[in-house]
Amino acid sequence: MELLKARIMQDGKCYPGGILKVDSFINHQMDSDLMMEIAKEFIRLFKDKPINKVVTIEASGIAPAIFVGYLMHLPVVFVKKKQPKTMDKMLATTVHSFTKDRDYSVCISADYLTKDDHVLFIDDFLAYGNAAKGVIDLCQQAGATIEGMGFIIEKAFQHGGDFLRSQGISYQALATVESLDNCEIKLRD
Amino acid sequence: MELLKARIMQDGKCYPGGILKVDSFINHQMDSDLMMEIAKEFIRLFKDKPINKVVTIEASGIAPAIFVGYLMHLPVVFVKKKQPKTMDKMLATTVHSFTKDRDYSVCISADYLTKDDHVLFIDDFLAYGNAAKGVIDLCQQAGATIEGMGFIIEKAFQHGGDFLRSQGISYQALATVESLDNCEIKLRD
Repeated sequence: MELLKARIMQDGKCYPGGILKVDSFINHQMDSDLMMEIAKEFIRLFKDKPINKVVTIEASGIAPAIFVGYLMHLPVVFVKKKQPKTMDKMLATTVHSFTKDRDYSVCISADYLTKDDHVLFIDDFLAYGNAAKGVIDLCQQAGATIEGMGFIIEKAFQHGGDFLRSQGISYQALATVESLDNCEIKLRD
Repeated sequence: MELLKARIMQDGKCYPGGILKVDSFINHQMDSDLMMEIAKEFIRLFKDKPINKVVTIEASGIAPAIFVGYLMHLPVVFVKKKQPKTMDKMLATTVHSFTKDRDYSVCISADYLTKDDHVLFIDDFLAYGNAAKGVIDLCQQAGATIEGMGFIIEKAFQHGGDFLRSQGISYQALATVESLDNCEIKLRD
């Protein structure tokens, strides 16, 4: 997606340890017009899939996911990082955050992820694929079908994409970072 | 907002302790079409204010806020509950969660909340007003002006609205719950 790639080159910032900071337009301050364009691109890529639910994980996935849901007129569910007091029937799994170097438990209500669901998972980053692995586990527990996964930015050198391909999961990334070596952003053409 | 009130009466659930559960359409599974209508209503209510930034707090405020930002073509910033490693200049404050009975620290980058900002704060619930108090503190630290606050649902019996009025803050709620006594939802006409 050329608009996104140009924006990453213009406003993205590189930090040691393979960190790409895009918090001026994607995951802290959000460019709402760009988010809508991102959602339109996801829909172009996944329009032939029999999707009936959009799933994301809090917090940075919510903005692109709700636009995708709006354009497809589908419900959007976000996986929660804290278990609410009032969630009765819950599916839970553990996700490892490499950036924050800790494991955390995530959950989704069994009322909103079921065997009847054909899921499009949307998130901001595909890095090591840990959030995606968590969602795969939740969908397996629910008996739901994953129709596809869409990420705004993939960091190819952290190999989450390799894992998804090995699982036969159809995924798309709108921009792919090949390398952040020497704090230089190299995007795939 | 009649569409919202009807939906709360239809799908909202009451729990002991003044808890209104709306997780089938607002804050876990989200009705994306309803969220867009909610955003349109916020814009109708705040259209005369000189707003240049939408601020919310993760996670449940993000969906309505990004639609408001999109319709107004404004950036949206969400206050974070965890401090990212890469946030250099940060404003922080403490918010008390009554539902979860604990204090937590929230933060926003000083790059995205400044003295030039005229803020519309959007969130899902106004209960005791603790998240709103946190945002007021962050805006004071930044020297930003709060032009208004919009909440999807106000729980009037928890008095956050009384606090905001005492501070001279202009706020709007799209549905106001008068009481949840005996687990019966009573909305203001």
